[in-house]
Amino acid sequence: METLRLYDFLPSGNGYKIRLLLTQLGMPFDRVEVDILKGETRTPEFLSKNPNGQIPVLEIESSKYLAESNAILIYLSEGTEFLPYDRFLRAQVLQWLFFEQYSHEPFIATSRFWISILDKAKEYQEKLEEKREPGYAALYVMEQHLTSRTFLVAERYTIADIALFAYTHVADEGGFDLTRFPAIQAWIERVKSQSGYISITQEQ
Amino acid sequence: METLRLYDFLPSGNGYKIRLLLTQLGMPFDRVEVDILKGETRTPEFLSKNPNGQIPVLEIESSKYLAESNAILIYLSEGTEFLPYDRFLRAQVLQWLFFEQYSHEPFIATSRFWISILDKAKEYQEKLEEKREPGYAALYVMEQHLTSRTFLVAERYTIADIALFAYTHVADEGGFDLTRFPAIQAWIERVKSQSGYISITQEQ
Repeated sequence: METLRLYDFLPSGNGYKIRLLLTQLGMPFDRVEVDILKGETRTPEFLSKNPNGQIPVLEIESSKYLAESNAILIYLSEGTEFLPYDRFLRAQVLQWLFFEQYSHEPFIATSRFWISILDKAKEYQEKLEEKREPGYAALYVMEQHLTSRTFLVAERYTIADIALFAYTHVADEGGFDLTRFPAIQAWIERVKSQSGYISITQEQ
Repeated sequence: METLRLYDFLPSGNGYKIRLLLTQLGMPFDRVEVDILKGETRTPEFLSKNPNGQIPVLEIESSKYLAESNAILIYLSEGTEFLPYDRFLRAQVLQWLFFEQYSHEPFIATSRFWISILDKAKEYQEKLEEKREPGYAALYVMEQHLTSRTFLVAERYTIADIALFAYTHVADEGGFDLTRFPAIQAWIERVKSQSGYISITQEQ
């Protein structure tokens, strides 16, 4: 197999999900930095890879591209210990992945982007306030679930944990107070102790 | 197997996805109407089924619940003609499902909800304007893709089509003008001509 190529933006939690899983799978990959702040996901060249204009994009073979971070996680983890084989457990993993993209990321990641990546907290103050309640609601759903569990699904580390960890563990960079969520904090430490763990700012 | 039970809200496109697939699979199910306008997804009883407080929820066996419409689509279509077996084609289906929940549904479905379900177009006028550009951007991505294709993935009808069809074919109810998108319109007619098709207002 050719070496996988990841089109990525280092501060991105969505990119980090893929970097973390590939590293934990021991799969080598080339990383191509795409500066979304300079409009590099809006060029004709990039749009030919992902017409939706977002990183991460995984180039699986020459000119064979896959977008959407959580679709990439599933693709890469099929047949590995990171995705359960049991049909209902696998469906629970998928449930958390869709929860992340619909009920978590648009509030928690977007707040972090405005505050800590763009450094425009004042300019986005009103919009940040709109993100607060749904963001905390998502964290509350996680907290409740993790109070009686070690990981999100099947009491073991899966891509559900990777997908939710990416933006949850840096939620404070979006103005969310994680000290209110002891079960989430304990889970964050468990994820960080997994073999092959890399931090969000590590390239691989 | 026990009969599947679907917790649903008839005007919901997310609920419709599951109704349509189950009907096309020929799988009988009981439908339980949950009136989200009356707060019925916020009761302790409903939250015990889905802590995230959203329909649809599929009860697979007694007290075994699955939430997130697109996770349910994948769960039900595994091993059927509605989900490709090939790893890359399957990943492309997943890519469209995440696109739908992140880049399409929050703009197109939410606009329809405010205008046509709540009947509060005036009250939500400013927020509706914010949804317009990203909503049209999602439709444009679909239009480009469908210009040279009959269906979203692998030139055949899959759950990617079901997931995107649900809110696209009623996008006009959210104020989006579909006459600008001839390839989408032709695709809508192809989906409607599929065996076992039911409309969004049909219970099954």
